[in-house]
Amino acid sequence: MTTTRFRGVIPPVITPLTAEGEVDTTTLRSVVEHLVSEGVDGVFALGSTGEVAYLDDAQRDVVVRTVVTAVAGRVPVLVGAIDTTSGRVAQAARRAAEAGADAIVATAPLYAINDLAEIERHFRAVAAATELPLFAYDIPVRVRTKLPADLLVRLGTDGVLAGVKDSSGDDVGFRRLVAANVAAGRPLAVLTGHEVVVDGMLLLGADGVVPGLGNVDPGGYARLWQAAQAGDWTRAREEQDRIAALFEIVFQAQGRSGDASGVGAFKTAMHHLGLIPGATMAFPVEPLDDATAARIAAIVDATMPARV
Amino acid sequence: MTTTRFRGVIPPVITPLTAEGEVDTTTLRSVVEHLVSEGVDGVFALGSTGEVAYLDDAQRDVVVRTVVTAVAGRVPVLVGAIDTTSGRVAQAARRAAEAGADAIVATAPLYAINDLAEIERHFRAVAAATELPLFAYDIPVRVRTKLPADLLVRLGTDGVLAGVKDSSGDDVGFRRLVAANVAAGRPLAVLTGHEVVVDGMLLLGADGVVPGLGNVDPGGYARLWQAAQAGDWTRAREEQDRIAALFEIVFQAQGRSGDASGVGAFKTAMHHLGLIPGATMAFPVEPLDDATAARIAAIVDATMPARV
Amino acid sequence: MTTTRFRGVIPPVITPLTAEGEVDTTTLRSVVEHLVSEGVDGVFALGSTGEVAYLDDAQRDVVVRTVVTAVAGRVPVLVGAIDTTSGRVAQAARRAAEAGADAIVATAPLYAINDLAEIERHFRAVAAATELPLFAYDIPVRVRTKLPADLLVRLGTDGVLAGVKDSSGDDVGFRRLVAANVAAGRPLAVLTGHEVVVDGMLLLGADGVVPGLGNVDPGGYARLWQAAQAGDWTRAREEQDRIAALFEIVFQAQGRSGDASGVGAFKTAMHHLGLIPGATMAFPVEPLDDATAARIAAIVDATMPARV
Amino acid sequence: MTTTRFRGVIPPVITPLTAEGEVDTTTLRSVVEHLVSEGVDGVFALGSTGEVAYLDDAQRDVVVRTVVTAVAGRVPVLVGAIDTTSGRVAQAARRAAEAGADAIVATAPLYAINDLAEIERHFRAVAAATELPLFAYDIPVRVRTKLPADLLVRLGTDGVLAGVKDSSGDDVGFRRLVAANVAAGRPLAVLTGHEVVVDGMLLLGADGVVPGLGNVDPGGYARLWQAAQAGDWTRAREEQDRIAALFEIVFQAQGRSGDASGVGAFKTAMHHLGLIPGATMAFPVEPLDDATAARIAAIVDATMPARV
Repeated sequence: MTTTRFRGVIPPVITPLTAEGEVDTTTLRSVVEHLVSEGVDGVFALGSTGEVAYLDDAQRDVVVRTVVTAVAGRVPVLVGAIDTTSGRVAQAARRAAEAGADAIVATAPLYAINDLAEIERHFRAVAAATELPLFAYDIPVRVRTKLPADLLVRLGTDGVLAGVKDSSGDDVGFRRLVAANVAAGRPLAVLTGHEVVVDGMLLLGADGVVPGLGNVDPGGYARLWQAAQAGDWTRAREEQDRIAALFEIVFQAQGRSGDASGVGAFKTAMHHLGLIPGATMAFPVEPLDDATAARIAAIVDATMPARV
Repeated sequence: MTTTRFRGVIPPVITPLTAEGEVDTTTLRSVVEHLVSEGVDGVFALGSTGEVAYLDDAQRDVVVRTVVTAVAGRVPVLVGAIDTTSGRVAQAARRAAEAGADAIVATAPLYAINDLAEIERHFRAVAAATELPLFAYDIPVRVRTKLPADLLVRLGTDGVLAGVKDSSGDDVGFRRLVAANVAAGRPLAVLTGHEVVVDGMLLLGADGVVPGLGNVDPGGYARLWQAAQAGDWTRAREEQDRIAALFEIVFQAQGRSGDASGVGAFKTAMHHLGLIPGATMAFPVEPLDDATAARIAAIVDATMPARV
Repeated sequence: MTTTRFRGVIPPVITPLTAEGEVDTTTLRSVVEHLVSEGVDGVFALGSTGEVAYLDDAQRDVVVRTVVTAVAGRVPVLVGAIDTTSGRVAQAARRAAEAGADAIVATAPLYAINDLAEIERHFRAVAAATELPLFAYDIPVRVRTKLPADLLVRLGTDGVLAGVKDSSGDDVGFRRLVAANVAAGRPLAVLTGHEVVVDGMLLLGADGVVPGLGNVDPGGYARLWQAAQAGDWTRAREEQDRIAALFEIVFQAQGRSGDASGVGAFKTAMHHLGLIPGATMAFPVEPLDDATAARIAAIVDATMPARV
Repeated sequence: MTTTRFRGVIPPVITPLTAEGEVDTTTLRSVVEHLVSEGVDGVFALGSTGEVAYLDDAQRDVVVRTVVTAVAGRVPVLVGAIDTTSGRVAQAARRAAEAGADAIVATAPLYAINDLAEIERHFRAVAAATELPLFAYDIPVRVRTKLPADLLVRLGTDGVLAGVKDSSGDDVGFRRLVAANVAAGRPLAVLTGHEVVVDGMLLLGADGVVPGLGNVDPGGYARLWQAAQAGDWTRAREEQDRIAALFEIVFQAQGRSGDASGVGAFKTAMHHLGLIPGATMAFPVEPLDDATAARIAAIVDATMPARV
């Protein structure tokens, strides 16, 4: 089964930044080490949580090489190839491959206004650009397009896609994707990107999760995954409940943008936990204010008691 | 606990229509009898699946009186009070109460463009219009507004709302609502309206489900609910998988409207199963064509084997 | 030409309310008298600006009878028949006809999820419900559906529709509608609902305007229309520029709902001008606060100098 | 007045492609020559119509250098700097400046989810990246964000923005932008991107138009502009009516994507007119089929009679 390596907990790694906005490679290495030591099954560099849209090509290369080196083969490294359309995404995929990625993650085209036939050709071209497995990243809130289950499973059956990261928030669509994938012989690794419904999604057949919050609490997600693997759904749900309470950190920054509230909360919590030396966000996003950071710290302390 | 009566499987009952478009009360009675005999825990009349938007006040009254009579007190009867804003919704609620409803279900205002403070006053006014428990119906695809968890739980704590029917498709929002409700002492009965993720939603704490597909296979949902109540999540998931395969009936009517595809599929399947004498839809919706009906029948036969 | 009567300036009349929320018929009569005396070419009762969604059937009847009596045949009275679907809208249309309406204005179905074939049948059924001319009201922000130009012109050619009130904000679509209507022999009276682009829309061929702001400054719109009719586009534009500055009143209520900001601003300005005794909004909408009312008054004073 | 150079008709130049998908520089030169000889007031390279999202950096450089050389200083050359966020957009702007651009055109961030404060910093950073004037490109259908008038005018007053290309389709917003710009002393050149409402937009004060259709009929837009400049609004409207009939070419490709239907129609019409040797679109967009091309040719022949 080609998808075997890409299951379980695969956090989208944050990109620690220096005060000047450059990639803090030392901290990035330690973040990766923390994730692996806590038991994650893979890491996803250059995702939305990794602030990929804000990094130039040179910075992106630094991130991938740093993560690959730090992981040292212990788990697979997925890398986002985020750009407007096929030719540019293919170039990004080749750069990621040269830097040591184990798999590529790509969305439908950005900015362009394409139909499903064009999107299918897009994924076929991106897959052909490297030897690596390709994951489709379904995130309509950023890309506008919802990828339909039948397209995804057909591309899986044809060997174009190795998996899907679903961040669509469409629970009916996710269940239909899982079911269609099973009916087709499981060509795809189907991963949910939603942090707080992992127990239910694993119950209905998801192959894993790509939780931004996994940067903050990788051990919690590892325990949730293990409970689910053991069929202990009550324990899975209890772990998920605790994690869901922790996830409230992303709703603390009232009146700020989605990226500031979400990634900013993850970085702020990691700073509070001593995992990173500061919560600098990529320009033009400013860090969260002190009052918000204090609310986030209180939530972390209340929901990750083992760390207090 | 005031919400005890409103949990488990509560299908939104279809409204059988004669060829002339009038309410077929004889068939409606038999549909209700079938639901109750198959073990549902309540019925919801005049929901979207009941084509409430297409019925005039007199027809609505007939539906409620027929359902109440047929149920004969064996399970609670929830009734939709669907109209544009507070005054009109309150009138509809009072009519439903006079006709014997056990609870009212209302959405945020339609057509009007209101903010959350106005929506809160709206629900308070509707609740005050009758003595009955009030459920908020969260269905942005029809109403445009997503009801936030904190508003719902506050209205629950204040005794305004007895529960929520969530048809928003926002899985993160649903988990947050369940968690906030638990934290507040469970003032609300939190019901999911999504047919194919019931196992996962029950696992994470939903109090029940309002499945349109429950008109077609009430017994399946009853078994799913019982398995979940027993903590047998593997069996719950197996039942859900079968039901999810049955749900594919709503995707068969290519190129038709949402109401034609969805409610039309339920009626077509019920006709195939001999539960109703015809699949007439309310004007201006035409019934599904023969080829679509044949595909739906094949799906029913393949996924409800006990009936063959 | 059947559309002759329905052109020029046709304001959607506000519904003055007493402090108790009932229709203030005395003030409504004087508002209508003011509009007619300032030179409007028609009035539109029970539109969005008339808070139609908030009024029950009895209140709606009072509004129509009051407006019809006050107008006394001097200009045509259009009346909104706003409800969820065909049967209910047809009932509302018949009530309006009995109360003396000269034309009916109806939207696509609300709440229901219909396709274009269903919407076409809907308009045909509503048109058949009375002898009166029917206008389609295209307002996607409230109804979700955008009515396509080819459907509208076909219904015009078939004698189903007498006109269109376009509040879609889709300027390309509006130009295409005007052009298709001209090509079909002008079966439709095409009216724009946007207050601040009337000069440009009249230049490109609109037959008139339905401006909520016309409640505040009917004379200004009458002058704009007359300048356009005379082909004096420079004067039309100057009048429009002044009116556009006045329209800033709707952007003063920061953080309030669309209905509060818009209709609330019209009522507040009319109160300031002494046209109505108070700016009460329909429940659950609260009036604008004093600071907002002061800003609105200042804008009125600065842009309607003749009244100071 | 710093904006003087950027007014009138400024078409977004298509990018002719060889059968292999490379930039056809010979044809691009002749397209530019045709535009300038027909009287346009500027050209905009690397816009949406120029398929910018589909071109890699090397191809983009070729386009800019070719256009700059072909224009030879006769009119200004605006160049799109389209990428995800500030750092990447600044890099694209610097490359465009080195290749000879006279002005930069940039959108709000793509893929990123930013608030208005972040978008404001974004535009300030992009402006600071080169010495060139910067235009904000407001195109929510591709970028999701609607740029508010007060932000744009403030950035104009601060010398950050030299102008705005409005492709938002929000006619009320456009009028408010024009009015706010006038009130601020006209710091911005306000250009509409909508091909069929140019007469009305010029009447209400637009400084120019960026029409994709201007690739097909630059002379028509030049005549429309001259009529408007002369205050001959009847003639402007007649020219616009003819152009609007020509614009129907973009609605011929039923069931194809927005980019295929729009840019594909422009290229197909230009091929029919002998302006380009083929209508190849950038991968993954396929050219329009023969039946669609025939319908487009017929519309061109019917509405550009001088060319027949």
